[in-house]
Amino acid sequence: MDARNGSVAVIGAGDFIGSAIARRFAREGYLVVAGRRSADKLEKLKNTIAEEGGRGLVRGLDARREDEVAAFLKAADEAAPLEACIINPGANVNFPILETTERVFRKVWEMACYSGFLAGREAARLMLPRDRGTILFTGATASVRGGVGYAAFASAKFGLRALAQSMARELGPKNIHVAHLVIDAGVDTAFVRERIRARGGEDAVEGLAADQLMNPESIANAYWFLHTQSRDGWTFELDIRPFMEKW
Amino acid sequence: MDARNGSVAVIGAGDFIGSAIARRFAREGYLVVAGRRSADKLEKLKNTIAEEGGRGLVRGLDARREDEVAAFLKAADEAAPLEACIINPGANVNFPILETTERVFRKVWEMACYSGFLAGREAARLMLPRDRGTILFTGATASVRGGVGYAAFASAKFGLRALAQSMARELGPKNIHVAHLVIDAGVDTAFVRERIRARGGEDAVEGLAADQLMNPESIANAYWFLHTQSRDGWTFELDIRPFMEKW
Amino acid sequence: MDARNGSVAVIGAGDFIGSAIARRFAREGYLVVAGRRSADKLEKLKNTIAEEGGRGLVRGLDARREDEVAAFLKAADEAAPLEACIINPGANVNFPILETTERVFRKVWEMACYSGFLAGREAARLMLPRDRGTILFTGATASVRGGVGYAAFASAKFGLRALAQSMARELGPKNIHVAHLVIDAGVDTAFVRERIRARGGEDAVEGLAADQLMNPESIANAYWFLHTQSRDGWTFELDIRPFMEKW
Amino acid sequence: MDARNGSVAVIGAGDFIGSAIARRFAREGYLVVAGRRSADKLEKLKNTIAEEGGRGLVRGLDARREDEVAAFLKAADEAAPLEACIINPGANVNFPILETTERVFRKVWEMACYSGFLAGREAARLMLPRDRGTILFTGATASVRGGVGYAAFASAKFGLRALAQSMARELGPKNIHVAHLVIDAGVDTAFVRERIRARGGEDAVEGLAADQLMNPESIANAYWFLHTQSRDGWTFELDIRPFMEKW
Repeated sequence: MDARNGSVAVIGAGDFIGSAIARRFAREGYLVVAGRRSADKLEKLKNTIAEEGGRGLVRGLDARREDEVAAFLKAADEAAPLEACIINPGANVNFPILETTERVFRKVWEMACYSGFLAGREAARLMLPRDRGTILFTGATASVRGGVGYAAFASAKFGLRALAQSMARELGPKNIHVAHLVIDAGVDTAFVRERIRARGGEDAVEGLAADQLMNPESIANAYWFLHTQSRDGWTFELDIRPFMEKW
Repeated sequence: MDARNGSVAVIGAGDFIGSAIARRFAREGYLVVAGRRSADKLEKLKNTIAEEGGRGLVRGLDARREDEVAAFLKAADEAAPLEACIINPGANVNFPILETTERVFRKVWEMACYSGFLAGREAARLMLPRDRGTILFTGATASVRGGVGYAAFASAKFGLRALAQSMARELGPKNIHVAHLVIDAGVDTAFVRERIRARGGEDAVEGLAADQLMNPESIANAYWFLHTQSRDGWTFELDIRPFMEKW
Repeated sequence: MDARNGSVAVIGAGDFIGSAIARRFAREGYLVVAGRRSADKLEKLKNTIAEEGGRGLVRGLDARREDEVAAFLKAADEAAPLEACIINPGANVNFPILETTERVFRKVWEMACYSGFLAGREAARLMLPRDRGTILFTGATASVRGGVGYAAFASAKFGLRALAQSMARELGPKNIHVAHLVIDAGVDTAFVRERIRARGGEDAVEGLAADQLMNPESIANAYWFLHTQSRDGWTFELDIRPFMEKW
Repeated sequence: MDARNGSVAVIGAGDFIGSAIARRFAREGYLVVAGRRSADKLEKLKNTIAEEGGRGLVRGLDARREDEVAAFLKAADEAAPLEACIINPGANVNFPILETTERVFRKVWEMACYSGFLAGREAARLMLPRDRGTILFTGATASVRGGVGYAAFASAKFGLRALAQSMARELGPKNIHVAHLVIDAGVDTAFVRERIRARGGEDAVEGLAADQLMNPESIANAYWFLHTQSRDGWTFELDIRPFMEKW
């Protein structure tokens, strides 16, 4: 692979979607700078990127701290010009409304929406002087539907989508591509399989069809596609779900 | 008017929409309990309600404080069973994304979304034991569109709409009617007329057609309509705008 | 009741929603002119309107025939100035895509969309010279969601909604109120109860909660509300469903 | 390029988007079978495909004729198994509602919606026995917004979108990928430049920024992306517009 003189920041580089995106951009030659709360959990990603011949830096990051987010992105930009920022926060919880504490409501918003604002704004600050860049936000079903028990999570995800729309309309004409992906199903993880088992028993897990759950690499392809669109034809929003998913 | 044994709380009883709703429900015989940040500014509303033959209590309220919101609604409910809660927060600001400080982003969310969560949840807590009630949220154009400069405001308003949806789906089957109104234009106020003057000059203001701006009483009618729908045919969402409005 | 010097046309005056709307507007003093395919089936409506002290004319009408629609509305307007036109077409069918014949696809469109275009345009033609009027379109879940098996019906209902939007934006500033109602559940009819029985057995029907199905009169209230909104605060769209409905 | 044993049908192979898609899939090795009303106008496309080393068949086709559509797709499938069907109808017109004749309303629907139904259904019929295939529908701004003057066009485009949704939900689990693209701006054509000139004069055309109008090849990339998504992560809908576009 040819190394590119550019960095890509992944904020919220979790084990699945975030890691797959980081690896994909690293395989394409970018210097990837990946952050998440627990620095420890990033070692595996760092090693995988290296094994795949890529360049990756990892760093513990509390995405709800303005100073940390600014420093994280600045460091990425100093290592190589920041070309893309992937904002992939996670905070999926489900509570009946009366059991949704103000602490939960606030924390979910901080993790899933406020952190996206900090990262999006700071990325834009670094990209605007160079008149280019891509900022991609990870959404979910809850970004467009407020289901039962999702008062906190959907509120935060709707909020993140609004932020993305507003930024896309302001920054598009300045050559910054802002987009939002609605990931409308479960990724194939131990956690999701366990949840399926809890609902439907062992048979439900064994009965899963091939490709019924999403491979994070398939999702990462969509991020790469958006990043590589030419600016005369940019997408703001797309949804992704497995072929068998009910929607 | 016949007095009803029921109270209606208006949270965010501003000079225009909030006051018109408060007066409307008072004219229908409810005990109206109105709150807003500055207790001083509520005196006029209190007097108007009295002049119109209604019963109104007013109280200073910081809707971002959980304890204050809970106490406010509890007091209303103790005065007479809480039958409706109108959540009418305001926090319309417009800033380019780089000039949107974290303080603004957070404060707008606290005022326009978090306060709605507190009020909605506490109202539900009081209504559920009696298996009845109405909770109405005031939305805006920014509830469904993230326009340029509205990163903070639209993010908060999208978030409030998600909250309302989630609550409607959970509480509907428990006989609590939750609805969301998209107010898609300017109300006829000195401030709005001034903004029109600033953009288009004196001619623009003088050229305003009759009914080109919204009378808060027309908006209040829609809140009353929603409150009085029979439960076999509830509306979750409706939009309101003047006949001449472009949309 | 005081008679008003105005007529209201109901196109698609079926036994349930259409009839309830017709009766409601008749009780408010309008001369109601109701049409549907089979003139025979309108006798009951005519008699009920008379028993309720109202004025109703009924007439067989194939709403897919331009000449018939124009003549029907012209006759209403000549009897008394046309103040409202209610467009309530029906054509709900469900077929797998491969079993959806071109005849079905075309016929459903003619019944549920094209007829609405004819009626909406002809009503506007009569109303515009007087600079006033209300045109209300009945939508359904299928107006906003293309579910499995609804290729024909949803296609027609989406199309009707687009027509309503386009007309609302063009005619609003000319003081014609165009609105669209999304009826998102089953009305309480023998047919709906039979369908519930077929799916869930006798228990499912007996287990229906009070108000779990919609009373057409509740729906008619929403039409009346829209007709009586003042023009400084018009609604384009609202949804209606029973409190227990999943959505 | 390696030839693939598969055909791709392009229905509505106009000079711009349709031709660019046809060329793109031909460059990827598919046998492309392109149809449009005037067979004459397809010669240039045929030659270009050949010059680019691809295989292309062209054929005059009235997409509103069931028999012609079925024969067209059958012929493609007999030449090589039908792997993708691109449905790219065009019928953009703008008329005030009173000037929208029933002939225009019907014809626009036949061209922009009914033809899509015929093509989508017939493509599904050929693909289902092999349990694979891609069906892509071209949408427009008018697919999601009923603007002034677009009663006919938006009605047809909303209808096409509903068809696509319904087919996606039914056929996805059968391994047929159905998607809908919202092309939300003008393609760079002589016609669009002329329209810009008519509105804003010569300066407006000369002042066009690079990439302010869309290159059909950029749009074609999105069709190719959708066709190549793995089935564990399919997109139903995406929008495309130039970076400078207001939306």
